[in-house]
Amino acid sequence: MSPKPLDYDSLNENVKKMQYAVRGELYLRASELQKEGKKIICTNVGNPHALGQKPLTFPRQVVALCQASFLLDDSNVGLLFPADAIARAKHYLAMTSGGLGAYATDSRGLPGIRKEVAEFIGRRDGYPGDPELIFLTGGASIGVMQFLNTIIRGAGDGILVPVPQCPLYSATISLFGGSLVPYFLEETANWGLDVNDLRQSVAEARSKGITVRAMVIINPGNPTGRCLSEVNLKEIIHFCYQENLVLLGDEVYQQNIYQDEWPFISARKVLMDMGPPISKEIQLVSFHTVSKGYWGECGQRGGYFEMTNIPQQTVDKIYTVAATSHSANVAAQIFIGLMVNPPKPGDVSYEQYVRESKGILESLRRRARIMTDGFNSCRNVVCNFTEGAMYSFPQIWLPPLAIEAAKKAGKVPDLFYCLKLLEATGISTVPGSGFGQKEG
Amino acid sequence: MSPKPLDYDSLNENVKKMQYAVRGELYLRASELQKEGKKIICTNVGNPHALGQKPLTFPRQVVALCQASFLLDDSNVGLLFPADAIARAKHYLAMTSGGLGAYATDSRGLPGIRKEVAEFIGRRDGYPGDPELIFLTGGASIGVMQFLNTIIRGAGDGILVPVPQCPLYSATISLFGGSLVPYFLEETANWGLDVNDLRQSVAEARSKGITVRAMVIINPGNPTGRCLSEVNLKEIIHFCYQENLVLLGDEVYQQNIYQDEWPFISARKVLMDMGPPISKEIQLVSFHTVSKGYWGECGQRGGYFEMTNIPQQTVDKIYTVAATSHSANVAAQIFIGLMVNPPKPGDVSYEQYVRESKGILESLRRRARIMTDGFNSCRNVVCNFTEGAMYSFPQIWLPPLAIEAAKKAGKVPDLFYCLKLLEATGISTVPGSGFGQKEG
Repeated sequence: MSPKPLDYDSLNENVKKMQYAVRGELYLRASELQKEGKKIICTNVGNPHALGQKPLTFPRQVVALCQASFLLDDSNVGLLFPADAIARAKHYLAMTSGGLGAYATDSRGLPGIRKEVAEFIGRRDGYPGDPELIFLTGGASIGVMQFLNTIIRGAGDGILVPVPQCPLYSATISLFGGSLVPYFLEETANWGLDVNDLRQSVAEARSKGITVRAMVIINPGNPTGRCLSEVNLKEIIHFCYQENLVLLGDEVYQQNIYQDEWPFISARKVLMDMGPPISKEIQLVSFHTVSKGYWGECGQRGGYFEMTNIPQQTVDKIYTVAATSHSANVAAQIFIGLMVNPPKPGDVSYEQYVRESKGILESLRRRARIMTDGFNSCRNVVCNFTEGAMYSFPQIWLPPLAIEAAKKAGKVPDLFYCLKLLEATGISTVPGSGFGQKEG
Repeated sequence: MSPKPLDYDSLNENVKKMQYAVRGELYLRASELQKEGKKIICTNVGNPHALGQKPLTFPRQVVALCQASFLLDDSNVGLLFPADAIARAKHYLAMTSGGLGAYATDSRGLPGIRKEVAEFIGRRDGYPGDPELIFLTGGASIGVMQFLNTIIRGAGDGILVPVPQCPLYSATISLFGGSLVPYFLEETANWGLDVNDLRQSVAEARSKGITVRAMVIINPGNPTGRCLSEVNLKEIIHFCYQENLVLLGDEVYQQNIYQDEWPFISARKVLMDMGPPISKEIQLVSFHTVSKGYWGECGQRGGYFEMTNIPQQTVDKIYTVAATSHSANVAAQIFIGLMVNPPKPGDVSYEQYVRESKGILESLRRRARIMTDGFNSCRNVVCNFTEGAMYSFPQIWLPPLAIEAAKKAGKVPDLFYCLKLLEATGISTVPGSGFGQKEG
């Protein structure tokens, strides 16, 4: 009897090749232990609310009122909700075609919120944003997947991805049948990015018949925690110009900055600062989300992307792709609106909002310091300071006996170590090999 | 200068080929008119809340409380929310790893809600469901896309799709580079499905070198409104067995039934009733959603799929694909829980829930009758009764002069008619050609 279409052997090869390290063998083992009643501390996914980070109050009030919009007609509503949350809920509901239960009439997301995003980008970068070039998505990853799908035509198309890297990219590139072209971040140089290494990666790919079409930067870095400097960003943009690459700027950690020397600076601002011709030429897509920062609202699945120098015909096609899976959930769109347009001085909720967001950021900053200091105080462990994002990426020298034991168990040594760590402490991590990091 | 990677000419060909009729030329024109201030009545998308359908109160109360979970500690909460909504919010929050802001710890969706879905399926079909084979998704369309991506390996793989059809299928099949193999529903036989026609479609595809791998049924039908009988479903399942096809059961309209002769019966129940060997052999995936029915919560983006007879290794791979784009937004998962486990007799909110859901269903039923009666009372218009789903699909005979005018304008006649209808009345529709319907 011939295999059935959903038997493993007859599946799409690209789907079969797909791996997702963050939720691989370690994750499955952690889930098992959890089922058995063991307390697991998940550090494998950036999921702050699962680790006790409290949501900001104001946005939750606004979205709750949008859900239960009938409360707006209840005379008791003021007992539970502040006036500015009520006003803001009305502001957003007026943008919808029928509340949170109606598809946004525009698959790119509610026009009023895209306008708020454009204004935010304008304030941040000093160059106005354009709502027509901003699409709201169900999380930043959806946008990344849409663009990779649009760029990749086959195995001959390569995407430059930083290594150690976020597994979203490796998983998605294999799903769409493209080729991941790695560029290595230098652990010994504080995860720095050397343009000569980039050139070498492209040359190597070319020698294998791969045309590199896009470059991904993750700034601040996942999982390295590195913040890119303006100088480094300029070099990257020049490089993309020379090599004719789309620049995909994963900037979801732009609020997660834990030092003052390297503030976040957007790829778009650097590009615009460089002026013509280059500022008119580089095709750039930037991604942002409500899942990170002091928001940490991962479970809401809200994100957006912004396009720079993308031809209208392509924008129209991206619109068609977005329309097929409908717009992002409307509540998540409203979270985006609230993120880019938070309470202002003088608003009833302003002080609480500032207190909460500062408190979260300071706590993250403190913990970044504790983590990296802690790692560096251990024998045989070193770790670069986590400048931003949410992760620490230590290097741990395993003794020869541990490596031997791993080999006997048929596991990569770092995975073996992480499994042991999980069994002993309940701490769920991701081994460096899962991020494609070099041996050692 | 060579074209840039995101210039239209250098995009992925599959993306370029993608069309999405529901949001095509007519949709764009309707958006323009709306911007100019014209009142547009959108009948092109099943988006009931945009047309004034009110959300059910109880689920909105529960999800609002989950968003603003701090209200659960407020002594005034009982003034705005009934006790059973408060209890239910606590029930769902206890399933999460950190409220609505945390990713579900399981990318398949919250285990507790998948259990509620399994129980619902068990009650509905008389055969127990298995939570391990149920995945929660950000709308049914996401699940459909995931399976089409998994099944389609290239242009030689065909998917049988009913015509007139829901454009989700044509758009997604072209996005993944597969071949749509149409089977025509017979307008003159009340949109009936003839297995001989299916055989002919498969034979024709085969003669073109296409291997048909899956068959889509939409029951109740979009856009035909047809409900499939048990006899018809048995024939379809037999046919899938003979031809070695996966059966994809789009059952999102299972609550939308407007007559008593053809109640909804799930493909899974019919399959199970048929007994072994066939009940153990057919690979079936069924899709459901909170976007339709008397819920109509499109904007929340909640759905699920259930797998029958899919090998474990494939299930594991589907899990990996789901993990990459993270789980559905958690609020939508809770909507699914509430849909499959609504208030019970004796609960405080039970009567209101029944009153509201009955009211919506009766109104839809009344309007299905008014629509089709209205069409059939017009000269040169006929329309089958809308037995279920949310759409009427009339046939309108255009006079030769209209066809000539359309040709002059360089448009397909039915699109031309729909554009004129839009300009004259503000009613936004989808031309039959957009669904792939036969000429005439």
